[in-house]
Amino acid sequence: MTRLCDIGEDALIQRLIDLVPRSLDPAAGPGDDCAVVDSTPGSPTLQLLKTDALVSGIHFLPETPPKAVGWKAAARVVSDFAAMGGYPEFFLITLALPPDTLVSWAEDLYRGIGDCLLQYGGKLAGGETTSIPEGSAAVISIAATGGVRRENLILRSTASPGDAVMVTGTLGGSILGKHLHFIPRIIESHWLAENYKPTAMMDLSDGLAKDLPRLASASCCGLRVDESALPLTMGCTVSQALGDGEDYEMLFTISPNISQELLIAWRRQFPQVPLTEIGSLVEFSNGQKLTGGWEHFSSH
Amino acid sequence: MTRLCDIGEDALIQRLIDLVPRSLDPAAGPGDDCAVVDSTPGSPTLQLLKTDALVSGIHFLPETPPKAVGWKAAARVVSDFAAMGGYPEFFLITLALPPDTLVSWAEDLYRGIGDCLLQYGGKLAGGETTSIPEGSAAVISIAATGGVRRENLILRSTASPGDAVMVTGTLGGSILGKHLHFIPRIIESHWLAENYKPTAMMDLSDGLAKDLPRLASASCCGLRVDESALPLTMGCTVSQALGDGEDYEMLFTISPNISQELLIAWRRQFPQVPLTEIGSLVEFSNGQKLTGGWEHFSSH
Repeated sequence: MTRLCDIGEDALIQRLIDLVPRSLDPAAGPGDDCAVVDSTPGSPTLQLLKTDALVSGIHFLPETPPKAVGWKAAARVVSDFAAMGGYPEFFLITLALPPDTLVSWAEDLYRGIGDCLLQYGGKLAGGETTSIPEGSAAVISIAATGGVRRENLILRSTASPGDAVMVTGTLGGSILGKHLHFIPRIIESHWLAENYKPTAMMDLSDGLAKDLPRLASASCCGLRVDESALPLTMGCTVSQALGDGEDYEMLFTISPNISQELLIAWRRQFPQVPLTEIGSLVEFSNGQKLTGGWEHFSSH
Repeated sequence: MTRLCDIGEDALIQRLIDLVPRSLDPAAGPGDDCAVVDSTPGSPTLQLLKTDALVSGIHFLPETPPKAVGWKAAARVVSDFAAMGGYPEFFLITLALPPDTLVSWAEDLYRGIGDCLLQYGGKLAGGETTSIPEGSAAVISIAATGGVRRENLILRSTASPGDAVMVTGTLGGSILGKHLHFIPRIIESHWLAENYKPTAMMDLSDGLAKDLPRLASASCCGLRVDESALPLTMGCTVSQALGDGEDYEMLFTISPNISQELLIAWRRQFPQVPLTEIGSLVEFSNGQKLTGGWEHFSSH
């Protein structure tokens, strides 16, 4: 009797998605930061769809300020749109809460979501509140639609061996506070898409050691990381940078011919945000393995 | 310190939705079965957005066959699209499950969702699985996009005093089994939209006593129900028809000038599905009160 914690999230999703009719649009399937839907052929934009959930006791604590929980819930979704080169449009918010939850807690949660939407342009379109048995963990599930100009769409699966691997910001130690207050890299990702379009991109949510292999594997590549080059959050080790997760930075690949030019232009454009070349993609058979990162159904 | 169970779902939503930026499209706001988005002005269709959650211990039991849970989760969403005169397109499925959940349980859940999508034409576009603490109630949250031809869009808020109130199927007793195996009335709702367009429509999920006042109130009307006319599920009382909930039948209003013609045409078109005139809308000040129905955050 196999349990979810025996196989992990990636394997679970693989086993599930073949059990239902799937979108046949090659860019629309599960597996990227957002699903892509060509809802209006001929229009200059594609539609992006995203759903993301936060669970009490897993992604935040009962004592975490609810406004910060709301910000995090919405900003994670904005970060996923950024990772595709896109922008958020309409949000649907589902709250599954125990009946003894304070109304003021739910209101502050919504205020945090509202702050994020005000800043990044999303609008509330609807939602649902539902009761869960007392003692159960609260679940906040946000679904959203977004858009992306066709020529700006960036997938995980389109990198090539030889591409340079880049990461924004610093890695590790998010649990000390950044995971609740991070700035989704949407301005940076739009600038990249317009000026130095990445060959592939995703946001770092489960840790570099978990996420970079996903990008490399989606692109049928192996990976090489120069661990001494990793941009460490102050006070953090390489192992934390690889494994802590919840960095919400952009991880992307770019042609090695323009990586140096990009680094120079980036420093002028975003002097406050580090950009670091941390390695490269290689042929699949020549890659290294990374260890660490967040496993959703592990029992530890 | 007000708790959710002190104020109920409708009041909670009213307090929350003003805390975030909202879509200004008059048809797009929260409060109907789906949100409506005019994503492509000039196109013959509008986009519909819906999110809906099922919770273990509330909407199903741990021992409920997971395939039936999956069917119910997807069919509830299809029923909401039907209530707008629309159809489902892309589904995002979020599973928040304890780590000791059997993989076969999740697979059977997906098979149930798949059966429903195969039958009603929706496609999986993406989703998420996330771990919840052991002992917490499983949450299945489904978000979906859909479409509706502009001229077929049916809201809750557009009925007038004098309109006849109609209901499909029979009411009450859903807990005996129908709540897991109901047929969403999407074929019937399309036929209605094309042939006898309702002035307002919604699906019955919380019970007639809860839902009809929502429709009447959204249309600034009062209501009169002839309780002796209610189509009772065999063995059920009027009180059950008013209050059990989870009927997933279509509740709609129509001009009294065509209600008799509709009843005749309906019997020819759908001989297996009852259609019953149960009352009428009146001026707001002349309405009656109904009691019963499902209150999401009540403590009983």
